[in-house]
Amino acid sequence: MSTLHGSVCFEQARRVAVFGGTHNEMSGVTLVNLWVKNGAEIQRKGLEARPFITNPRAVEKCTRYVDTDLNRAFSPENLSAPGGDDLPYEVQRAQEINRLFGPKGSPEAYDVIFDLHNTTSNMGCTLILENSKDHFNLQMMNYIKKAVAPACCLVLLNEHPLLKYSTSRSVAKHPVGLEVGPQPQGVLRSIFESMRIILKHALDFIELFNEGVEFPACTVEVFRVLERVDYPRDTNGNIIAMVHPNLQDCDWEPLTPGDPMFQTFDGKTIYYQGPGTVYPTFINEAAYYEKQQAFVTTRREALVASTIRKSIN
Amino acid sequence: MSTLHGSVCFEQARRVAVFGGTHNEMSGVTLVNLWVKNGAEIQRKGLEARPFITNPRAVEKCTRYVDTDLNRAFSPENLSAPGGDDLPYEVQRAQEINRLFGPKGSPEAYDVIFDLHNTTSNMGCTLILENSKDHFNLQMMNYIKKAVAPACCLVLLNEHPLLKYSTSRSVAKHPVGLEVGPQPQGVLRSIFESMRIILKHALDFIELFNEGVEFPACTVEVFRVLERVDYPRDTNGNIIAMVHPNLQDCDWEPLTPGDPMFQTFDGKTIYYQGPGTVYPTFINEAAYYEKQQAFVTTRREALVASTIRKSIN
Repeated sequence: MSTLHGSVCFEQARRVAVFGGTHNEMSGVTLVNLWVKNGAEIQRKGLEARPFITNPRAVEKCTRYVDTDLNRAFSPENLSAPGGDDLPYEVQRAQEINRLFGPKGSPEAYDVIFDLHNTTSNMGCTLILENSKDHFNLQMMNYIKKAVAPACCLVLLNEHPLLKYSTSRSVAKHPVGLEVGPQPQGVLRSIFESMRIILKHALDFIELFNEGVEFPACTVEVFRVLERVDYPRDTNGNIIAMVHPNLQDCDWEPLTPGDPMFQTFDGKTIYYQGPGTVYPTFINEAAYYEKQQAFVTTRREALVASTIRKSIN
Repeated sequence: MSTLHGSVCFEQARRVAVFGGTHNEMSGVTLVNLWVKNGAEIQRKGLEARPFITNPRAVEKCTRYVDTDLNRAFSPENLSAPGGDDLPYEVQRAQEINRLFGPKGSPEAYDVIFDLHNTTSNMGCTLILENSKDHFNLQMMNYIKKAVAPACCLVLLNEHPLLKYSTSRSVAKHPVGLEVGPQPQGVLRSIFESMRIILKHALDFIELFNEGVEFPACTVEVFRVLERVDYPRDTNGNIIAMVHPNLQDCDWEPLTPGDPMFQTFDGKTIYYQGPGTVYPTFINEAAYYEKQQAFVTTRREALVASTIRKSIN
């Protein structure tokens, strides 16, 4: 990355990976398996796009993970942990993925990794951004949002100091998460076509960038992760309430102080009492019960993406 | 069971069980756990209503089963199998449940067992009937349908010679399945209140019956299981299509020859080509991928329920 005449310059993005099966979420697993057989759909001039199943054992067993969540396993400690075969399966796998697509943080790392996920939440199509200063990704997301309009594709920004986690895609220089929902675990619904279309536009963007197209400065609306909200619990830690029907399926809609948030099993309503309006998402996601998360709150922000162009060298 | 002046007479139903957790489906697990702590809500005069978690290990592990599907394990072979601790966990558990609530087919068996399930399919509230000649259950289902109106509660009849399976509830004289959906696996949504209301009416019916109320003959609309339809597959057995968007979430709606049924991953539509209109249900249920079932077809029928009253003795 460098700057030239006010533009931010990046190397061409020649090595791209598409991850499916980081969890056993069927849209990504199905698409990646299709592309492993026949990759024509994801090939673009001047770049290699490699489809890859990241957690094949979990996919085979129809479970989120075998020993530990792969999508939390790419910490420096894990990636450098000695132990070989004695390590948890997903830590071994993280090390292997880091060898194949990284090393994380190095010049040898893949340029872009797309990681394909489904959620049981009613989030529609969501791109996940890990760094508000990643102008390449911001421009890509802006391009995708415009390309799919009038359909909607939102951007979730997670750079929260405590809630950000070490994802599989974080091995790449430009990590891109893609969540599509709602879809129950273990089920394939036709929303996988939306995932396919977003990935098509993403690859088109990279091809254009590599060809020398300059993308002028723009603003991108993102939803920044603020806070994790747990289910109400009793003193033994048992959940005593569910997401209120007025909030269920209302991902991305404003939640204002005084709005219903949970409904206890004996029929009482628990209201949101935060200081101001927030935008909840990942509402009632199945996989987050174990993470003690009923939803996350977010704040809407407009980020400025600088002009970008490829480096001349 | 006997007949008197054209009525079918049954013994009072004094022993009733409410099963949750036959699979790890959260509405039933949550309700049964609540009632184990405080059963006042399900107690009725003149009957014992016993809440019971049938597969605690599967519930603890958040999985459908440990070794084999408990809700297929109540066959005569399993229930009489020697082997003790060497048997699959769910077979051991079936034997234990049969000791506690059966023996299946004997006069000592519980009168009624309600078995609480969730589905990822858009089935709404569905009662499952195992025998079209069970006039006690038919009357109960008629009572429930009227009690919840204008809300809807449908009846699925499964006495198909090949597709009927040996359920946990089949231990009782009058087995009643209750499916509520759509709800992703691992998630609790407020539809569990619908389940609670249906069970309330079911217990009210039993109390009235025990008090001597006669229920006059009536007809009950049921959907009889006709056929299992699998996902289209390639020669290696891999799924090559998903439920067509026009069919997804259209449980109980007519499917007519020529209607779209599946969409292949390369975009082709596969049409329904059966001989006449059917009513599909359990459309795209997560747990039935392993059973090679995309949905079942059903036929609408009106069953006659005879007048019932309690035996005088």
